[in-house]
Amino acid sequence: MIVGAIPEWEDGRILLCRRAIEPRHGLWTLPAGFMENGETTLEAAARETQEEANAMVQVGDLYSLYNIPYINQVYMLFRARLLNLDFSPGIESLEVKLFTESEIPWDTMAFRAVSMTLKNYFSDRNAGSYKFHIGDLLPPGKT
Amino acid sequence: MIVGAIPEWEDGRILLCRRAIEPRHGLWTLPAGFMENGETTLEAAARETQEEANAMVQVGDLYSLYNIPYINQVYMLFRARLLNLDFSPGIESLEVKLFTESEIPWDTMAFRAVSMTLKNYFSDRNAGSYKFHIGDLLPPGKT
Repeated sequence: MIVGAIPEWEDGRILLCRRAIEPRHGLWTLPAGFMENGETTLEAAARETQEEANAMVQVGDLYSLYNIPYINQVYMLFRARLLNLDFSPGIESLEVKLFTESEIPWDTMAFRAVSMTLKNYFSDRNAGSYKFHIGDLLPPGKT
Repeated sequence: MIVGAIPEWEDGRILLCRRAIEPRHGLWTLPAGFMENGETTLEAAARETQEEANAMVQVGDLYSLYNIPYINQVYMLFRARLLNLDFSPGIESLEVKLFTESEIPWDTMAFRAVSMTLKNYFSDRNAGSYKFHIGDLLPPGKT
């Protein structure tokens, strides 16, 4: 299970990480990674944000869940409040940066689960309320 | 990851299974079990209901998620509509039966994640709307 966060700063910008590792080296993503033994999903989301962006977050509601059966994974992303601007690239990131909605680098995003989550997130935020989203991902190229 | 269903018949009764296997042989639970490779969380919830109760359900919204870090598990339960009354014990069940809220055998339930889910479920249903619930379980005896 892959767990991550949608770290939002108080001005609405979202923290993304540019990957320093494969797969998808050089592409942008939300902080997320494999859950470890002995932790909760919320703890995993906070730990991944700490590891990949040296950033402190307060993890909130579960926002999205994507089933990715062709790789036997489930991807869960939580809303999160970025607590300060003291962040920097962790060892698995080339760069970490805050983005407004219009600045999100949609063409260089690493993972569909993250792109779809962010599209829903901005759509919900603009509509004034956040809904939980669940979906399935098919192998790339199959629809 | 353990995934299961809260199968509700059209009169509001909930389908429970009495376990024919360890752990908690002889105690009652919702149909649930370990997710398998190549399936989605919704497919896992439907498959477990089929295997344990020979029952057909239409799986709906994710209703609850319990982190159980001391056994390195996450327990997810989905709302589900029982499609007909043609159910019977699967190989892992001694008995399967529909229960009204007041008939639920609270003293002989197998798992806290299931008891807590059902308590929230009836509370939400009585209040007129279902909310997603997330929580952590500590080892028995620790609070």
